[in-house]
Amino acid sequence: MRVAFRRATRNDLPAIVALLADDALGAAREASSGGAYAAAFDRIDADPNQLLAVADHDGQVIGTLQLTFTQGLSRGGAIRGQIEAVRIAGHLRGQGIGQQMIEWAVATCRSHGCAMVQLTTDKSRLDAHRFYDRLGFEQSHLGYKMIL
Amino acid sequence: MRVAFRRATRNDLPAIVALLADDALGAAREASSGGAYAAAFDRIDADPNQLLAVADHDGQVIGTLQLTFTQGLSRGGAIRGQIEAVRIAGHLRGQGIGQQMIEWAVATCRSHGCAMVQLTTDKSRLDAHRFYDRLGFEQSHLGYKMIL
Repeated sequence: MRVAFRRATRNDLPAIVALLADDALGAAREASSGGAYAAAFDRIDADPNQLLAVADHDGQVIGTLQLTFTQGLSRGGAIRGQIEAVRIAGHLRGQGIGQQMIEWAVATCRSHGCAMVQLTTDKSRLDAHRFYDRLGFEQSHLGYKMIL
Repeated sequence: MRVAFRRATRNDLPAIVALLADDALGAAREASSGGAYAAAFDRIDADPNQLLAVADHDGQVIGTLQLTFTQGLSRGGAIRGQIEAVRIAGHLRGQGIGQQMIEWAVATCRSHGCAMVQLTTDKSRLDAHRFYDRLGFEQSHLGYKMIL
Protein backbone atom coordinates (compact mmCIF):
# COMPACT_ATOMS: atom_id res chain seq x y z
CA MET A 1 0.00 0.00 0.00
CA ARG A 2 1.51 3.31 -1.12
CA VAL A 3 1.32 6.00 1.53
CA ALA A 4 2.84 9.48 1.36
CA PHE A 5 3.45 11.63 4.42
CA ARG A 6 3.11 15.36 3.97
CA ARG A 7 2.21 18.65 5.62
CA ALA A 8 -1.54 19.01 6.11
CA THR A 9 -3.52 21.62 4.20
CA ARG A 10 -6.76 23.28 5.20
CA ASN A 11 -8.60 20.90 2.84
CA ASP A 12 -7.45 17.98 5.00
CA LEU A 13 -9.01 19.43 8.14
CA PRO A 14 -12.39 17.58 8.10
CA ALA A 15 -10.62 14.25 7.58
CA ILE A 16 -8.13 14.97 10.37
CA VAL A 17 -10.87 15.91 12.84
CA ALA A 18 -12.77 12.73 11.88
CA LEU A 19 -9.64 10.69 12.68
CA LEU A 20 -9.25 12.42 16.05
CA ALA A 21 -12.87 11.62 16.90
CA ASP A 22 -12.68 7.99 15.67
CA ASP A 23 -10.80 6.79 18.72
CA ALA A 24 -11.69 5.15 22.02
CA LEU A 25 -10.56 8.17 24.03
CA GLY A 26 -11.11 10.85 21.40
CA ALA A 27 -14.79 10.05 20.74
CA ALA A 28 -15.85 11.78 23.95
CA ARG A 29 -13.60 14.77 23.38
CA GLU A 30 -14.16 15.89 19.80
CA ALA A 31 -17.11 17.67 18.25
CA SER A 32 -17.84 16.66 14.66
CA SER A 33 -17.71 20.24 13.43
CA GLY A 34 -16.99 23.75 14.59
CA GLY A 35 -15.02 26.78 13.62
CA ALA A 36 -12.63 26.23 16.52
CA TYR A 37 -10.80 23.61 14.47
CA ALA A 38 -10.30 25.97 11.52
CA ALA A 39 -8.89 28.71 13.73
CA ALA A 40 -6.65 26.19 15.48
CA PHE A 41 -5.43 24.86 12.13
CA ASP A 42 -4.47 28.35 11.00
CA ARG A 43 -2.47 28.97 14.18
CA ILE A 44 -0.65 25.64 13.84
CA ASP A 45 0.05 26.25 10.16
CA ALA A 46 1.48 29.72 10.83
CA ASP A 47 3.89 28.49 13.51
CA PRO A 48 7.34 27.56 12.13
CA ASN A 49 7.82 25.23 15.09
CA GLN A 50 4.76 23.14 14.30
CA LEU A 51 4.09 20.59 11.60
CA LEU A 52 0.66 19.03 11.30
CA ALA A 53 1.06 16.03 9.02
CA VAL A 54 -1.14 13.53 7.24
CA ALA A 55 -0.67 10.08 5.77
CA ASP A 56 -2.11 10.24 2.26
CA HIS A 57 -3.15 7.20 0.23
CA ASP A 58 -4.39 8.06 -3.26
CA GLY A 59 -5.60 11.45 -2.07
CA GLN A 60 -7.36 10.03 1.00
CA VAL A 61 -6.20 11.11 4.47
CA ILE A 62 -5.71 7.86 6.39
CA GLY A 63 -3.54 9.06 9.26
CA THR A 64 -2.33 12.13 11.10
CA LEU A 65 0.10 13.36 13.72
CA GLN A 66 1.35 16.68 14.97
CA LEU A 67 5.01 17.57 15.48
CA THR A 68 6.24 20.41 17.68
CA PHE A 69 9.89 21.48 17.67
CA THR A 70 10.81 22.97 21.03
CA GLN A 71 14.08 24.79 21.63
CA GLY A 72 15.27 24.19 25.16
CA LEU A 73 18.28 25.06 27.28
CA SER A 74 18.85 21.66 28.84
CA ARG A 75 21.03 19.02 27.20
CA GLY A 76 23.33 21.74 25.88
CA GLY A 77 20.59 23.80 24.23
CA ALA A 78 18.89 20.90 22.49
CA ILE A 79 15.79 21.03 20.30
CA ARG A 80 13.16 18.42 21.15
CA GLY A 81 10.67 17.01 18.71
CA GLN A 82 7.34 16.21 20.29
CA ILE A 83 4.79 13.93 18.67
CA GLU A 84 1.11 14.42 19.55
CA ALA A 85 -2.30 13.35 18.28
CA VAL A 86 -1.25 10.20 16.40
CA ARG A 87 -4.12 8.50 14.59
CA ILE A 88 -4.49 5.88 11.83
CA ALA A 89 -7.88 5.20 10.22
CA GLY A 90 -9.59 2.35 12.09
CA HIS A 91 -10.00 0.05 9.10
CA LEU A 92 -6.30 0.34 8.22
CA ARG A 93 -4.70 -0.35 11.58
CA GLY A 94 -2.28 -3.25 11.96
CA GLN A 95 -0.83 -2.87 8.45
CA GLY A 96 2.36 -1.05 9.35
CA ILE A 97 1.18 2.41 8.32
CA GLY A 98 1.58 3.76 11.84
CA GLN A 99 5.15 2.49 11.94
CA GLN A 100 5.94 4.18 8.61
CA MET A 101 4.34 7.39 9.87
CA ILE A 102 6.35 7.42 13.11
CA GLU A 103 9.56 6.60 11.25
CA TRP A 104 8.82 9.52 8.92
CA ALA A 105 8.19 11.76 11.95
CA VAL A 106 11.47 10.72 13.59
CA ALA A 107 13.36 11.37 10.34
CA THR A 108 11.67 14.77 10.06
CA CYS A 109 12.74 15.63 13.62
CA ARG A 110 16.28 14.54 12.81
CA SER A 111 16.44 16.74 9.72
CA HIS A 112 15.08 19.63 11.81
CA GLY A 113 18.08 19.28 14.15
CA CYS A 114 16.29 17.66 17.09
CA ALA A 115 18.44 15.84 19.64
CA MET A 116 15.48 13.88 20.94
CA VAL A 117 11.95 12.83 20.03
CA GLN A 118 9.40 12.52 22.80
CA LEU A 119 5.76 11.62 23.18
CA THR A 120 3.33 10.45 25.80
CA THR A 121 0.59 7.90 25.49
CA ASP A 122 -2.33 7.22 27.79
CA LYS A 123 -1.68 4.42 30.27
CA SER A 124 -4.76 2.62 28.94
CA ARG A 125 -3.43 2.39 25.35
CA LEU A 126 -1.66 -0.96 25.75
CA ASP A 127 -1.31 -1.50 22.01
CA ALA A 128 0.42 1.87 21.74
CA HIS A 129 2.93 0.91 24.46
CA ARG A 130 3.96 -2.23 22.56
CA PHE A 131 4.09 -0.17 19.35
CA TYR A 132 6.47 2.49 20.69
CA ASP A 133 8.60 -0.07 22.54
CA ARG A 134 9.03 -1.95 19.26
CA LEU A 135 9.98 1.21 17.35
CA GLY A 136 12.90 1.87 19.71
CA PHE A 137 11.43 4.46 22.05
CA GLU A 138 12.42 4.18 25.70
CA GLN A 139 9.61 4.27 28.24
CA SER A 140 11.63 6.37 30.64
CA HIS A 141 9.12 8.92 31.97
CA LEU A 142 5.73 9.28 33.61
CA GLY A 143 3.32 11.74 32.06
CA TYR A 144 1.22 14.06 34.22
CA LYS A 145 -1.68 16.19 33.05
CA MET A 146 -3.93 18.72 34.69
CA ILE A 147 -7.16 19.78 32.97
CA LEU A 148 -7.81 23.48 33.50
CA MET B 1 10.83 33.74 52.00
CA ARG B 2 9.80 36.19 49.27
CA VAL B 3 10.11 34.76 45.79
CA ALA B 4 9.04 36.42 42.54
CA PHE B 5 8.46 34.49 39.34
CA ARG B 6 9.26 36.28 36.11
CA ARG B 7 10.41 35.89 32.52
CA ALA B 8 14.13 35.14 32.30
CA THR B 9 16.54 37.63 30.80
CA ARG B 10 19.86 36.95 29.15
CA ASN B 11 21.59 38.02 32.39
CA ASP B 12 19.94 35.06 34.14
CA LEU B 13 21.41 32.53 31.71
CA PRO B 14 24.54 31.48 33.69
CA ALA B 15 22.43 30.92 36.81
CA ILE B 16 19.82 28.91 34.87
CA VAL B 17 22.46 26.67 33.28
CA ALA B 18 24.03 26.13 36.70
CA LEU B 19 20.64 25.01 38.03
CA LEU B 20 20.19 22.60 35.12
CA ALA B 21 23.61 21.09 35.80
CA ASP B 22 23.09 20.87 39.59
CA ASP B 23 20.84 17.84 39.35
CA ALA B 24 21.26 14.09 39.66
CA LEU B 25 20.35 13.52 36.00
CA GLY B 26 21.43 16.89 34.62
CA ALA B 27 25.01 16.74 35.89
CA ALA B 28 26.01 14.32 33.16
CA ARG B 29 24.18 16.24 30.45
CA GLU B 30 25.13 19.88 30.85
CA ALA B 31 28.40 21.64 30.07
CA SER B 32 29.29 24.47 32.44
CA SER B 33 29.72 26.96 29.62
CA GLY B 34 29.31 27.30 25.89
CA GLY B 35 27.78 29.58 23.30
CA ALA B 36 25.14 26.97 22.52
CA TYR B 37 23.18 28.10 25.56
CA ALA B 38 23.20 31.75 24.51
CA ALA B 39 21.94 30.91 21.03
CA ALA B 40 19.29 28.62 22.49
CA PHE B 41 18.20 31.36 24.90
CA ASP B 42 17.74 33.83 22.05
CA ARG B 43 15.57 31.37 20.09
CA ILE B 44 13.41 30.64 23.14
CA ASP B 45 13.09 34.33 23.96
CA ALA B 46 12.03 35.19 20.40
CA ASP B 47 9.28 32.53 20.30
CA PRO B 48 5.88 33.87 21.42
CA ASN B 49 4.88 30.31 22.37
CA GLN B 50 7.73 29.90 24.82
CA LEU B 51 8.31 31.34 28.26
CA LEU B 52 11.53 30.63 30.10
CA ALA B 53 10.96 31.64 33.70
CA VAL B 54 13.00 32.07 36.85
CA ALA B 55 12.24 32.18 40.56
CA ASP B 56 13.95 35.29 41.89
CA HIS B 57 14.78 35.89 45.55
CA ASP B 58 16.38 39.28 46.21
CA GLY B 59 17.89 39.31 42.73
CA GLN B 60 19.23 35.76 43.00
CA VAL B 61 17.94 33.11 40.56
CA ILE B 62 16.90 30.18 42.75
CA GLY B 63 14.68 28.24 40.37
CA THR B 64 13.70 27.85 36.73
CA LEU B 65 11.23 26.19 34.41
CA GLN B 66 10.28 26.45 30.77
CA LEU B 67 6.72 26.74 29.47
CA THR B 68 5.68 25.95 25.91
CA PHE B 69 2.19 26.79 24.65
CA THR B 70 1.20 24.37 21.90
CA GLN B 71 -1.87 24.90 19.75
CA GLY B 72 -3.39 21.56 18.82
CA LEU B 73 -6.45 20.32 16.98
CA SER B 74 -7.55 17.67 19.45
CA ARG B 75 -9.89 18.44 22.33
CA GLY B 76 -11.72 20.94 20.17
CA GLY B 77 -8.64 22.91 19.13
CA ALA B 78 -7.16 23.23 22.61
CA ILE B 79 -3.90 24.92 23.57
CA ARG B 80 -1.69 22.83 25.85
CA GLY B 81 0.81 24.25 28.28
CA GLN B 82 3.88 22.09 28.67
CA ILE B 83 6.27 22.43 31.59
CA GLU B 84 9.89 21.36 31.08
CA ALA B 85 13.24 21.72 32.83
CA VAL B 86 11.99 22.39 36.37
CA ARG B 87 14.76 23.06 38.88
CA ILE B 88 15.04 24.56 42.36
CA ALA B 89 18.44 25.40 43.88
CA GLY B 90 19.63 22.40 45.89
CA HIS B 91 20.01 24.22 49.22
CA LEU B 92 16.46 25.59 48.99
CA ARG B 93 14.52 22.42 48.20
CA GLY B 94 11.77 21.26 50.53
CA GLN B 95 10.65 24.80 51.43
CA GLY B 96 7.63 25.04 49.15
CA ILE B 97 9.29 27.15 46.45
CA GLY B 98 8.77 24.46 43.83
CA GLN B 99 5.08 24.32 44.68
CA GLN B 100 4.77 28.12 44.36
CA MET B 101 6.63 27.98 41.05
CA ILE B 102 4.40 25.26 39.60
CA GLU B 103 1.27 27.03 40.83
CA TRP B 104 2.53 30.19 39.11
CA ALA B 105 3.18 28.17 35.92
CA VAL B 106 -0.33 26.67 35.99
CA ALA B 107 -1.85 30.13 36.50
CA THR B 108 0.24 31.47 33.62
CA CYS B 109 -1.00 28.65 31.37
CA ARG B 110 -4.57 29.40 32.40
CA SER B 111 -4.22 33.08 31.56
CA HIS B 112 -2.71 32.09 28.21
CA GLY B 113 -5.90 30.16 27.39
CA CYS B 114 -4.55 26.65 27.88
CA ALA B 115 -7.10 23.87 28.39
CA MET B 116 -4.50 21.58 29.92
CA VAL B 117 -1.06 21.60 31.50
CA GLN B 118 1.21 18.63 30.93
CA LEU B 119 4.68 17.52 31.89
CA THR B 120 6.73 14.39 32.14
CA THR B 121 9.18 13.38 34.80
CA ASP B 122 11.80 10.66 34.78
CA LYS B 123 10.61 7.39 36.34
CA SER B 124 13.56 7.58 38.75
CA ARG B 125 12.50 10.94 40.24
CA LEU B 126 10.33 9.51 43.02
CA ASP B 127 10.21 12.80 44.94
CA ALA B 128 8.91 14.52 41.82
CA HIS B 129 6.12 11.97 41.44
CA ARG B 130 4.87 12.64 44.96
CA PHE B 131 5.22 16.38 44.33
CA TYR B 132 3.07 16.44 41.18
CA ASP B 133 0.52 14.02 42.64
CA ARG B 134 0.15 16.37 45.59
CA LEU B 135 -0.28 19.43 43.36
CA GLY B 136 -3.27 17.87 41.63
CA PHE B 137 -1.71 16.51 38.45
CA GLU B 138 -3.01 13.17 37.21
CA GLN B 139 -0.40 10.54 36.38
CA SER B 140 -2.34 9.38 33.35
CA HIS B 141 0.33 8.82 30.71
CA LEU B 142 3.59 7.06 30.00
CA GLY B 143 6.40 9.12 28.52
CA TYR B 144 8.59 7.76 25.73
CA LYS B 145 11.81 9.29 24.47
CA MET B 146 14.21 8.47 21.67
CA ILE B 147 17.65 10.08 21.63
CA LEU B 148 18.69 10.92 18.05
